[in-house]
Amino acid sequence: MQWREQPAIYFEDYGSPVERSSYLIELHTNDGGSYDVINDASSPAAGDCCVQQSSARHNWEMNYQEAAIYLQEGENNDKFFTHPKNAKALAAYLFVHNHLFYLMELSTALLLLLLSLCEAPAVPMLRLGIFVHATLELFALIVVVFELSMKMRWLGFQTFIRHKRTMVKTCVLFVQFIEAIVVLVRQTSHVRITRALRCIFLVDCRYCGAVRRNLRQIFQSLPPFIDILLLLLFFMVIFAILGFYLFSPNHSDPYFNTLENSLVNLFVLLTTSNFPDVMMPSYARNPWSCVFFIVYLSIELYFIMNLLLAVVFDTFNDIEKRKFKSLLLHKRTAIQHAYRLLITKQRPSGISFKHFEGLLRFYKPRMCARERYLTFKALNQSNTPLVSLKDFYNFYEVVGLKWKAKRNREHWFDDLPRTAFLIFKGINILVNSRVFQYTMYTVVAVNGIWILVETFMLQGGNFFSRNVPWSYIVFLTIYGVELLLKTTGLGPVEYLSSGWNLFDFSVTLFAFLGLMALAFNMEPFYFIVVLRPLQLLRLFKLKKRYRNVLDTMFELFPRMASLGLTLLIFYYCFAIVGMEFFAGVVYPNCCNTSTVADAYRWVNHTVGNKTVVEEGYYYLNNFDNILNSFVTLFELTVVNDWYIIMEGVTSQTTHWSRLYFMIFYIVTMVVMTIIVAFILDAFVFRMNYTRKNQDSEEDNGIVLEKEISKEEVVGIIELYKRISGASETAQLQKIVLQMDKYGQMSTVFLGRRSRTKSDLSMKMYEEEIQEWYEEHSRKEETQTPLQEPASASNSSVKPLSLRQRSQTVI
Amino acid sequence: MQWREQPAIYFEDYGSPVERSSYLIELHTNDGGSYDVINDASSPAAGDCCVQQSSARHNWEMNYQEAAIYLQEGENNDKFFTHPKNAKALAAYLFVHNHLFYLMELSTALLLLLLSLCEAPAVPMLRLGIFVHATLELFALIVVVFELSMKMRWLGFQTFIRHKRTMVKTCVLFVQFIEAIVVLVRQTSHVRITRALRCIFLVDCRYCGAVRRNLRQIFQSLPPFIDILLLLLFFMVIFAILGFYLFSPNHSDPYFNTLENSLVNLFVLLTTSNFPDVMMPSYARNPWSCVFFIVYLSIELYFIMNLLLAVVFDTFNDIEKRKFKSLLLHKRTAIQHAYRLLITKQRPSGISFKHFEGLLRFYKPRMCARERYLTFKALNQSNTPLVSLKDFYNFYEVVGLKWKAKRNREHWFDDLPRTAFLIFKGINILVNSRVFQYTMYTVVAVNGIWILVETFMLQGGNFFSRNVPWSYIVFLTIYGVELLLKTTGLGPVEYLSSGWNLFDFSVTLFAFLGLMALAFNMEPFYFIVVLRPLQLLRLFKLKKRYRNVLDTMFELFPRMASLGLTLLIFYYCFAIVGMEFFAGVVYPNCCNTSTVADAYRWVNHTVGNKTVVEEGYYYLNNFDNILNSFVTLFELTVVNDWYIIMEGVTSQTTHWSRLYFMIFYIVTMVVMTIIVAFILDAFVFRMNYTRKNQDSEEDNGIVLEKEISKEEVVGIIELYKRISGASETAQLQKIVLQMDKYGQMSTVFLGRRSRTKSDLSMKMYEEEIQEWYEEHSRKEETQTPLQEPASASNSSVKPLSLRQRSQTVI
Repeated sequence: MQWREQPAIYFEDYGSPVERSSYLIELHTNDGGSYDVINDASSPAAGDCCVQQSSARHNWEMNYQEAAIYLQEGENNDKFFTHPKNAKALAAYLFVHNHLFYLMELSTALLLLLLSLCEAPAVPMLRLGIFVHATLELFALIVVVFELSMKMRWLGFQTFIRHKRTMVKTCVLFVQFIEAIVVLVRQTSHVRITRALRCIFLVDCRYCGAVRRNLRQIFQSLPPFIDILLLLLFFMVIFAILGFYLFSPNHSDPYFNTLENSLVNLFVLLTTSNFPDVMMPSYARNPWSCVFFIVYLSIELYFIMNLLLAVVFDTFNDIEKRKFKSLLLHKRTAIQHAYRLLITKQRPSGISFKHFEGLLRFYKPRMCARERYLTFKALNQSNTPLVSLKDFYNFYEVVGLKWKAKRNREHWFDDLPRTAFLIFKGINILVNSRVFQYTMYTVVAVNGIWILVETFMLQGGNFFSRNVPWSYIVFLTIYGVELLLKTTGLGPVEYLSSGWNLFDFSVTLFAFLGLMALAFNMEPFYFIVVLRPLQLLRLFKLKKRYRNVLDTMFELFPRMASLGLTLLIFYYCFAIVGMEFFAGVVYPNCCNTSTVADAYRWVNHTVGNKTVVEEGYYYLNNFDNILNSFVTLFELTVVNDWYIIMEGVTSQTTHWSRLYFMIFYIVTMVVMTIIVAFILDAFVFRMNYTRKNQDSEEDNGIVLEKEISKEEVVGIIELYKRISGASETAQLQKIVLQMDKYGQMSTVFLGRRSRTKSDLSMKMYEEEIQEWYEEHSRKEETQTPLQEPASASNSSVKPLSLRQRSQTVI
Repeated sequence: MQWREQPAIYFEDYGSPVERSSYLIELHTNDGGSYDVINDASSPAAGDCCVQQSSARHNWEMNYQEAAIYLQEGENNDKFFTHPKNAKALAAYLFVHNHLFYLMELSTALLLLLLSLCEAPAVPMLRLGIFVHATLELFALIVVVFELSMKMRWLGFQTFIRHKRTMVKTCVLFVQFIEAIVVLVRQTSHVRITRALRCIFLVDCRYCGAVRRNLRQIFQSLPPFIDILLLLLFFMVIFAILGFYLFSPNHSDPYFNTLENSLVNLFVLLTTSNFPDVMMPSYARNPWSCVFFIVYLSIELYFIMNLLLAVVFDTFNDIEKRKFKSLLLHKRTAIQHAYRLLITKQRPSGISFKHFEGLLRFYKPRMCARERYLTFKALNQSNTPLVSLKDFYNFYEVVGLKWKAKRNREHWFDDLPRTAFLIFKGINILVNSRVFQYTMYTVVAVNGIWILVETFMLQGGNFFSRNVPWSYIVFLTIYGVELLLKTTGLGPVEYLSSGWNLFDFSVTLFAFLGLMALAFNMEPFYFIVVLRPLQLLRLFKLKKRYRNVLDTMFELFPRMASLGLTLLIFYYCFAIVGMEFFAGVVYPNCCNTSTVADAYRWVNHTVGNKTVVEEGYYYLNNFDNILNSFVTLFELTVVNDWYIIMEGVTSQTTHWSRLYFMIFYIVTMVVMTIIVAFILDAFVFRMNYTRKNQDSEEDNGIVLEKEISKEEVVGIIELYKRISGASETAQLQKIVLQMDKYGQMSTVFLGRRSRTKSDLSMKMYEEEIQEWYEEHSRKEETQTPLQEPASASNSSVKPLSLRQRSQTVI
């Protein structure tokens, strides 16, 4: 560590940057400063050394900011053609890019979406006057206008026009505005199907990036999907004609009496939803007619439907890899841009800590001084005090690490007196022992079987008796003792850091609350009792495959949630359309003329003395408000018996209503196929990964270890005192005190973060990534070598942004 | 071609073999011949040259036969530990391994299976007396005993005992035998569930190797499947307890009133079969109860079920590759064994044509002399007259080629007089032109739309009018003209060699037959008319993706058929069990006490003057005979509304009957998941293959070209005359005549066969295959170098057969 001997390195001058932030140039020009050519970027600001130190510092601040913006753009996969180009755009950019603005965006979008709870076919409890909800809507729309105008300020009119998603949003906004005003003026709600487009406000939110990615992936998978869908529909039409000719002579067969019925019923048969029924009339007449249905189902359901999945899976696979590649290269380009803004002419081989620290102040303002220095050290692989470009490429992997001093003491009770220490040590050993673990598994298993048997014995009746069952108390006591032992043995912090322990803890707590509820006869809480069986999930820790599956499940969870949200957005669109057309058309005994009359029947007849209610219940599956619509749409998604809902609505409206249900089926089929393809892809990927890295089985995320000496800390404190006063050095001084206390010359810090899909992909495609990098840098070099950064910032970006622009919309 | 100048090479002596066929040794010992040590194989038959030529020839015949057996074993993936070990075993082996025996095996198995059509709950038309069918059964079983005893003779008692599949078969045979005799003696049929085991006779057939492979694959995929299934059932139990606690207080909810009902209904919900219904009573009471069902379905149906597919798909993928590898190496070992038996001590570097020809006479007796020589030439890559081991490794790829002389004339009409030639040439050009093709596509499309519109206009009524519609005649005329033009333009042979043309031809023929039927008022033939729309399938030739899909479909067809057969075997087992337990329990109005009474209702009440028949039809889904059982089981496979069938049967028997239906569901789920995984795997594989070989797009299978000179043919004729008389040379002489006629010195032959999955895999795993070979040969070498073939035949085989034995059963 040759450079540790030269703490003076931290007190160097700022130096002059190789490349100047574009805002700075603009700024100086606007101020009538010393720069007279705006596009002067190509001549690297000669004669800087004579500019005053404070001015140099101001200039550097600008560079830091732009570098941080580049890095953010790289991380968020924002294309560089939306990069703010001047100081005014920068101000707008900064205004638009912070959590407050994001939250405003999100809450406006949510408000607009939630309005449909209160509008015309409203949820009864939430009904609002037309004046109230129209005013609310207008208010929300005005906020959206404000947001859009800020964005326009940032992007500039040219880019704004070119950005398709924003343009679509603007159009939708315009339409919504007019409609809201019309509603206010007429004081009555008209058919507003356009409300279905409100989703775009949510999709456009910064926080919904994952949803946009999903939508893009769905649209990319569409062409092959549609091809196979056509094949499917083609066979359907052929079989419909065949079926019509074969079965329409049978007058007791209502399914094939016209070609339209034949088509509709074969479409429904595709979902198997009417299966044995559609076959029965012809089967009763001639047993061999079952061949028609068996052949149809074998071809359509068992072959072409699976083909559909295969094609989507294949496309999905391909897209996932290409997406990973393009994101990786995009990040790399962003790092190159940032790097060029941070190196000085005096030392062009790397970034010094001072400049790195400046960057981090903008990139991650909430990072403390200690973490900034540790990040710098973690990046710096060489013996020099500078971070080279090669090291800097790891920026995104390192900056997410959470740093903690490696504890000198192994357990939380190490500092306690001898007797207490021995007791706690004993508990610790007990808790970590296999015997203890397996005893607990046995207890949980016994408890599970107990609950099962107990519930089986109840057989209805008054099972919520007033007295608390003793078994409940026994098991809960055991769990309580286990919780207590584990908390004391491991220390509360370590205990709760494991997901499984957290789960144990909350389940035990809930069970205890249930016990309290039972003991104090608080009826409304009784249902907590039923959470008990969930404790059985602990048993699945035992087998490796389950651990794998559950781990993968947790890793997939964010992505699954975003897919679910995507599905909900489709639901919203269809719910609005459904409400506009079908609200109130379905009610008890509504469809007595249709073939599904039974399902909608509600008869209240008296047999002897008893009143027998014959309920078909299907009138509950209606579009009377948005919540009901969502439930109805979920039932349509599950597809079983969906034709009953379809026929019910159809019998009350026109037979064109079927189009709505059929289109919904196809849309959910697309989304569901994508979900299946995603789960398939993720698990197959994960299993291949496990197979490839069988040695490094137990992984707890990414861990990095760095040692810091006392001298270094003192050096940094000095540096910070010079830059920003003493405010940031408090934590650093605490480290020095700590070291003094234990008489150490250095402290070891551990950086930790959880493993992401991107980390796994990095490892899986290791070899290919090197090729991509080479190909990428070859492309860059032929256009502009890195040695001339000024022109590079223009020309090297363009081909990338042009290539990726086609994927930008939505 | 240096060796063409030495035709004497064909007339060489037989030479003495390096290794001697094991039968030969045995034979000589038994005859008290010149060999006195049985295990003499290690000393390579010294002093052979003084044995007479005819004896040498006899010895060689034995070597040829054993080599051919080795090659057959390699091809059929028979393990080498079942290799016949002596002359007696050889005789039995030859008896057992020919198509007559295979056919006997198959027909016996089919007879046994078909007996269930006539036994106790028989198909009404096929009912046979107990005496008749029991006698038939006994007869079939005696044939099986004969087959088994022949196999025992071949395998020897030791191997026979070790071969698990055969042992299971023997046990089943024993049980069946006793039962058949009991039936004959008592003259009444008892509960014979063991009939379900009859399938094993079919599975064991030589022709059902694909079914055995499928079954093996299913069993290999079971462990991970069961793991995930347990997770699925665990969540089911937890939700069942939760559901019981939550919904049983609602007395109008029949689905959750006991824990058993709760479990059963959640199991059915897993198949979505009772979906909105099971939710409705609780949903009507409290709308928020839908959350329970949504969460349950999301976890079970949309997550864990897909997980199941992912796990099976992953396992399947892995197994497919391992299977391919082991089969490849098995074939290689077989080739090595055969090679050792065919080389002579005089020329140990390769196999001469004479010996190769001897091999082929046993391996493929129906190959003609010309093809044998062409196969030899295709294998021989070197300039020597010997086929080296390296060349011989390609044996399986080359031996399947069909050889044809490359035509001198391009078209079939080239020999016709000038005028006729010009006419036909014109037709040929017309038929091959794009304009003609697209015109035909347009005609087909117009025809399709015409049929659709025409059918739509009919709207029921008397659409089978006596007069033939003119549109039908017009379109059929166009198709007829096209068929005629194509047949004359391309020649009938070339025309019918394309699958699509064959399809066109048969559809047009059928349509013509339909026309005849219409014209002559032959009612029973009217349904042929409905085949017309199938002609629309031709339109799919237009797009590349469809061509790919359809090609893959045809490639997959054999495998799909075998999977279907596997499913049918499972059906058979369940059908027998179902018939034994549930025959006759379901009939109209049988289940009036159950919740599904409506589906079984058959009411014939009079409203006013009309008789209204209210039919539930579900009583048709019964187990009254094996055909009905199959249809019922298919309905259970489709799973929609399967619980109605289950509940119907349950209400008439005990509630343990549900176990039958649930087990059937799980079994079909396994098979169906395998089918989906297979389709996924095959298509993803194919698409990857296409992506990898984008340049060689249009492939018509494997094609090889070989040129043969006149001298060579004459040489072979001489050779054959010496070996086997003039009988085999007729075809060769024809070639000589042909050459003389056209004055050629040589003829080019084309070898052709269709591409198999194995060929694709060879190309896909190209690099890995080399590694496998190296690894394999390294393993062999460390055990026995190829230079000492005698001991190799024993020791090098054993580890392989031991390793693979675990996969042998079934």
